[in-house]
Amino acid sequence: MRILILGGDGYLGWPTAMFLSVRGHDVCIVDNLSKRLWEAKIGVAPLFHLPTLQRRVRVWNEQTSRPISMRVGDVAVNHRFIYRVFEEFRPDGIVHFAEQPSAPFSMDSREHAYETQSNNILGTLNLLFAMRAFVPDAHLVKLGTMGEYGTPTVDIEEGWLELEHNGRRDRVPYPKRPGSFYHASKVADSVNIEFACRSWGIRATDLNQGVVYGTDTDETLRSELHTSFHYDEVFGTVLNRFVVQAVVGIPLTVYGRGGQTRGFLDIRDTLRCVELALSKPADAGEFRVFNQFTEQFSVMDLAGFVQRAGRQCGLDVKIDHVPNPRVEKEDHYYNAWPTALASLGLQPHLLTDETVAGMIRRVQAVRDHVDTNVIYPTIKWRQETPMHAGLR
Amino acid sequence: MRILILGGDGYLGWPTAMFLSVRGHDVCIVDNLSKRLWEAKIGVAPLFHLPTLQRRVRVWNEQTSRPISMRVGDVAVNHRFIYRVFEEFRPDGIVHFAEQPSAPFSMDSREHAYETQSNNILGTLNLLFAMRAFVPDAHLVKLGTMGEYGTPTVDIEEGWLELEHNGRRDRVPYPKRPGSFYHASKVADSVNIEFACRSWGIRATDLNQGVVYGTDTDETLRSELHTSFHYDEVFGTVLNRFVVQAVVGIPLTVYGRGGQTRGFLDIRDTLRCVELALSKPADAGEFRVFNQFTEQFSVMDLAGFVQRAGRQCGLDVKIDHVPNPRVEKEDHYYNAWPTALASLGLQPHLLTDETVAGMIRRVQAVRDHVDTNVIYPTIKWRQETPMHAGLR
Repeated sequence: MRILILGGDGYLGWPTAMFLSVRGHDVCIVDNLSKRLWEAKIGVAPLFHLPTLQRRVRVWNEQTSRPISMRVGDVAVNHRFIYRVFEEFRPDGIVHFAEQPSAPFSMDSREHAYETQSNNILGTLNLLFAMRAFVPDAHLVKLGTMGEYGTPTVDIEEGWLELEHNGRRDRVPYPKRPGSFYHASKVADSVNIEFACRSWGIRATDLNQGVVYGTDTDETLRSELHTSFHYDEVFGTVLNRFVVQAVVGIPLTVYGRGGQTRGFLDIRDTLRCVELALSKPADAGEFRVFNQFTEQFSVMDLAGFVQRAGRQCGLDVKIDHVPNPRVEKEDHYYNAWPTALASLGLQPHLLTDETVAGMIRRVQAVRDHVDTNVIYPTIKWRQETPMHAGLR
Repeated sequence: MRILILGGDGYLGWPTAMFLSVRGHDVCIVDNLSKRLWEAKIGVAPLFHLPTLQRRVRVWNEQTSRPISMRVGDVAVNHRFIYRVFEEFRPDGIVHFAEQPSAPFSMDSREHAYETQSNNILGTLNLLFAMRAFVPDAHLVKLGTMGEYGTPTVDIEEGWLELEHNGRRDRVPYPKRPGSFYHASKVADSVNIEFACRSWGIRATDLNQGVVYGTDTDETLRSELHTSFHYDEVFGTVLNRFVVQAVVGIPLTVYGRGGQTRGFLDIRDTLRCVELALSKPADAGEFRVFNQFTEQFSVMDLAGFVQRAGRQCGLDVKIDHVPNPRVEKEDHYYNAWPTALASLGLQPHLLTDETVAGMIRRVQAVRDHVDTNVIYPTIKWRQETPMHAGLR
């Protein structure tokens, strides 16, 4: 299959590209590399020194018989670039990771909220038009987020809801209450994609992904081919951040009471889920939604995993309940259904103390790289962050 | 009350500005005048020659004791402009019409879909940040559209739904399935505004408006103060278009079977609804939604009104069922609730043959202005319109 990976320089995009290449697919990466700029602007860096994308692709192509190709360009700003890529590469499947992926980034200032929504919504819009123009029968696999749903007091279904209301029935998009301008951008994407499926007959799978954790996949363990692992308050997901805090001996920053419950998955399962979605494309005109996670945990559950795994590794891990910078419920009902991917055959890597201990040992090897100044939450949902605020 | 009207040069914005000024409010108009550019680009013009906004404001200020002020600038592109306006004017209420208002415009090309979503979504986003920075207690009255809901087979509620699901209950945003990229932009706006209310305590009323018809309000009948009335396929709403077709003697272009049912209201009721919303602001943190229409009609119902009123005016009005350029149901359940505005005291102008005959007579006086080439639908939902397509 010819697979275009948008956002192939990222934490998930790069391992996905290698994973699909190994499995015999013809992979082309597109990235505008803007995540590297965003990192620089807010003063954070991945834990492992990250070679350029060009370097990683070169190393991969020297080591394997399945070369990956790459193009640098901006899907949201330059539609002619992405039209050209579609015209030349003619993908059968498009995996779309090319979005600003951080909720705190989108909440630190007007400037970054604007950049997030502009990049994500308009990039996806250009992509839909490129698909219609050149590969109307291709399959879009779009990374959404479980955070689109918010935390309703009713069960969360997979994208659609069988609604009964005043004695009548309909199948409707599941109602959404996103928790940041980042999450809101993903809601807008889903609306646009559902409309394009309905109106143009596009095939799409929206993967509403939970919070991903993990340092490595089989492919990233090779020299120079690791991925962009973040532990900072902006781009670091919660378990990754906790593991780094445990290693450097600062208390885990649990936001508020820590009863916030979400769906989680191992980075290796992200790759497998994308492959499963590609292997059974949505029908023409179908907007298919999968909830992509394997287990539900509260933040305090995760802190417990890190404490226990820390003890195995000789670490005394403390927990600090810091004032919650976000606007979110800290104790709530949460029951979501991730059944579709299981029915396609997903064999999940469930979270164990051993998984976390493995992450801890991996991070211990590069302990000196950690910048402890970028972990504590400074970006608050209710007020502008002076450091990142744009000029008025 | 100090009221900022964004999009005050438009079909509804200008009459609203005068209406609120007459009622003693201190009104400031903001507009980037881009609708005039969009009209020029696609080759359409309002039926009545439209003086510049500056001219109309000058005429108004010479004739009345309540001067309207105005500023030309772009809310979506230049946040410093709108921040400055908020800092200086400090509005109590903001009426937000400053959006690209046409579904066909958003569907004719990638370029115009992009422009629509960029202007509408990012403009509203900048506006929310300006409110937070300068007038966090002000009240936003935002023009949404009934078209955000689509045509579900269940009753349409006012923005929120009391959901019962698997034995549990929640109050959730009403599920939406917009019918164009324009309608999708309004859905994205609603998501962003609801989030800002929930997170920042903003007060907002989302007016999900039906299709507006009518040539005039009390104020627009004064010399040089009429509004931007459109009858073309892009910016002309259906009843306005039918009236013009009746006057110039071309058959009414009913799209498909004409069973498409929507909510409608008289332009004079739009003004009154905005005033009612302003007079009873939403609570701090409340995202309030009103369905703003007074009656439901099918397209064929409207054609019948125009035929009967045409006969009164000596016109023999024919109906032409043209291939539907849109992707929409032509025969469907439709039952929406517009109860909130009635409970605030709205006395609607209901549609009668006499209303339509009045519109016909008003249009007959300027019959020679009509460009009959711009009425027939050429913009199709399923394919790019060559004339408006951007370069590849």
